[in-house]
Amino acid sequence: MAKQPKQLDELFHEGLKDIYFAEKKILTALPKLAKAAQSEELVSAFEKHRAETEEHVSRLERVFEMIEEKPHGKTCPAIMGLVEEGQDIAKEYKDSPALDAGLLAAAQAVEHYEIARYGTLRTWAQELGMKEAVNLLSRTLEEEEKTDALLSRLAEQSVNREAQMA
Amino acid sequence: MAKQPKQLDELFHEGLKDIYFAEKKILTALPKLAKAAQSEELVSAFEKHRAETEEHVSRLERVFEMIEEKPHGKTCPAIMGLVEEGQDIAKEYKDSPALDAGLLAAAQAVEHYEIARYGTLRTWAQELGMKEAVNLLSRTLEEEEKTDALLSRLAEQSVNREAQMA
Repeated sequence: MAKQPKQLDELFHEGLKDIYFAEKKILTALPKLAKAAQSEELVSAFEKHRAETEEHVSRLERVFEMIEEKPHGKTCPAIMGLVEEGQDIAKEYKDSPALDAGLLAAAQAVEHYEIARYGTLRTWAQELGMKEAVNLLSRTLEEEEKTDALLSRLAEQSVNREAQMA
Repeated sequence: MAKQPKQLDELFHEGLKDIYFAEKKILTALPKLAKAAQSEELVSAFEKHRAETEEHVSRLERVFEMIEEKPHGKTCPAIMGLVEEGQDIAKEYKDSPALDAGLLAAAQAVEHYEIARYGTLRTWAQELGMKEAVNLLSRTLEEEEKTDALLSRLAEQSVNREAQMA
């Protein structure tokens, strides 16, 4: 039998593994970012998002169940690069008034990565007729978008404060 | 003299180098994506975005001039990962009805990377009092957001078509 071309359900499974890996990575990165951040608002934003991220991981595990697959991550070089960037900034900008601005930039790049992935997965889940998965993925997508909007507000405040300190 | 902590203008310069590298990489990737894509709309979206990307590169070169720096890119592992993903999908999903869906997912991850970066750079340029840079960065940001919205529409059409073919 000739090998069948890959289908949307395989893309969906691949995409789930990718974002599952990313969420797990983010879960370990957020406490480090919270520890590095200067402003209380940013510390608390990172802590709040960590709690949400735990929920995102568990929603993904429910989606894996729905497609009868074990939850496994697949190494994603892009998210590893983004997470490392945050850690580099924490070191290089330690004690700089621009530290929070740098951490915010790295965190927003991570959020946008997730927004892109959840948007795609939701579209595919819809097409695959997985209503409950659409619901779970939509809730996470909404939280990622809210986090990004909060980080944008903090970024504006942060650079204002940095300018006053400089 | 003690080493001065790094400031926002250094973050801005670093950020410019990062997105300059990314845009150049995207410029070489888009023709490959256009060649791989199945639907005419997607081919034409990639081609149109290639032309826009040339303009984005030249806008960035103008911003480098404004801060009296030569335009140089700085290797960014995240964007390299995202661009490679598109190329992997082009190979792995060749002749699959899910090919366009996969290419769209990779392209949207790239767009979101750029949206995050340009949003951050615009905020920083504003704070640094660089009005003309704010204007240039805003124009590019708007085009990236429009491209992402177009790709979202094509993604919905594409999975619908895939379902009909399956």
